[in-house]
Amino acid sequence: LNSLFVVINDEFVPADKARIAISDLAIQRGYGIFDFFKTVNGNPVFLDQHIERFYRSAGHMRLSTDKSPAALKEMLFELIAKNGIGDSGVRITLTGGYSVDGYSTSAPNLLITQQPLVFTPGIQAPLRLVTYAHQRQMPEVKTIDYLMAIWLKPFIEENKADEVLYHQRGIVSECPRANFFIITRDNVIVTAGRNILKGVIRSNILKLSSEGFNIEERDITLDDIYKAQEAFITSTTKNILPVIQVDGKTIGDGTIGKTTQLLSDALLVLLNREVAKAQGFATTS
Amino acid sequence: LNSLFVVINDEFVPADKARIAISDLAIQRGYGIFDFFKTVNGNPVFLDQHIERFYRSAGHMRLSTDKSPAALKEMLFELIAKNGIGDSGVRITLTGGYSVDGYSTSAPNLLITQQPLVFTPGIQAPLRLVTYAHQRQMPEVKTIDYLMAIWLKPFIEENKADEVLYHQRGIVSECPRANFFIITRDNVIVTAGRNILKGVIRSNILKLSSEGFNIEERDITLDDIYKAQEAFITSTTKNILPVIQVDGKTIGDGTIGKTTQLLSDALLVLLNREVAKAQGFATTS
Repeated sequence: LNSLFVVINDEFVPADKARIAISDLAIQRGYGIFDFFKTVNGNPVFLDQHIERFYRSAGHMRLSTDKSPAALKEMLFELIAKNGIGDSGVRITLTGGYSVDGYSTSAPNLLITQQPLVFTPGIQAPLRLVTYAHQRQMPEVKTIDYLMAIWLKPFIEENKADEVLYHQRGIVSECPRANFFIITRDNVIVTAGRNILKGVIRSNILKLSSEGFNIEERDITLDDIYKAQEAFITSTTKNILPVIQVDGKTIGDGTIGKTTQLLSDALLVLLNREVAKAQGFATTS
Repeated sequence: LNSLFVVINDEFVPADKARIAISDLAIQRGYGIFDFFKTVNGNPVFLDQHIERFYRSAGHMRLSTDKSPAALKEMLFELIAKNGIGDSGVRITLTGGYSVDGYSTSAPNLLITQQPLVFTPGIQAPLRLVTYAHQRQMPEVKTIDYLMAIWLKPFIEENKADEVLYHQRGIVSECPRANFFIITRDNVIVTAGRNILKGVIRSNILKLSSEGFNIEERDITLDDIYKAQEAFITSTTKNILPVIQVDGKTIGDGTIGKTTQLLSDALLVLLNREVAKAQGFATTS
């Protein structure tokens, strides 16, 4: 791992030498945004959607980088080529910059890191969730604020769960790093439409409504979950993960549901097409 | 400023060389806590209360330093002696540490910085506040999360105010870096008792009830503010700052109130006694 490179602003730096001054507003005040995408066989997946969200987050937080999306992409491809890791996660972070008074932003620091990841194609092992009353501040922005998520790790363990699911007064939003879906008894796929970070896998799932899936964006209550037929979460690294238990209550018959499986298959087709496109092979659907 | 020293873990480092690895969980996930105290003539003010709160914040966030309060104090005094700044602010930060996976805590990094500050004794120039609906997560812990506060700076300016005051559904909590008080028309001094960070100046003001001030900790509504006779905020650097306007509405007659002035005088006596005590001169009240 020590031989990997990272980017700090315009420089490639060995990962074990990547440091920033402690006056950075991320350290002083937790001020920063990021995005995260994967590479499969060295090819970025849904890169344009991640880049677009990165600049949207930065814009909302008034962090402006002098790098254009094209220049950023060029830098990303250079880093990926330099590191030579096929399957990986790439994180692009933009911080509040070196602050003179510890409270004002300045020129943001751009940090790009890459780490090897092992991906399992297709559907993942099922999960148990535990709910917790919390609403992320600025939910539609991918900020570096994961204070509650990290703090809740022992809570998740104590509740014999794999991940936490946030709700506010019984209305469910999301997991710290994943979007949440249920499938109702009349086979409607439902996911929250507000107070969430709109994930890239989530938005690609929404597109599958053109393939005959009945998908709705609307509020989900805790009660909706307990009565659901199936449930799953989505994330960049894991695609679709079936959820078989929430708050100790079994969802459906406690196995991977039929519609979840069908969606996962459809998503895999979409993902393979995306990877093929990134590799430069023309494909038609 | 470049000749100042800071502490990183057990080392004194020139401020312009103070850097940490970008794998630190403060940079990756905004995970960290801090405390901040002032020195007057090189003497720390209310140091024990700040140290106590620092360890309380660290404990709540499950960040444990191997440094005992006594060892930390020794290091603080050594830094203060080394830097030789009479009037200053000292910040002690404890981060989530260098994270292997970008999501787990490890041995926390301790960062201590000192900066010169100019203090005006007695009451400060009056302020205008603007309210905003927001509740800080983990309000009783002094985390590094000031995402909303930094983000709201243009909002404060647009509203011709000096600082923002948070409320949630009309119940007022605090400013990002200060506690808030009103004085009702029947001369009761009121400050919020929950969903706030309990400031050290705030707790010293509460003690002044023994000197004949009528002080209550209870919920304050926006309507209570608009009807108040006086209002002020408190902070470590500024002690008491009178508030003469909230949301464009004038508080009382728009000048520094009589009770605010009396409280400020009483606080100054208490502060002078504290500084004298720190200097090692025995004083009796």
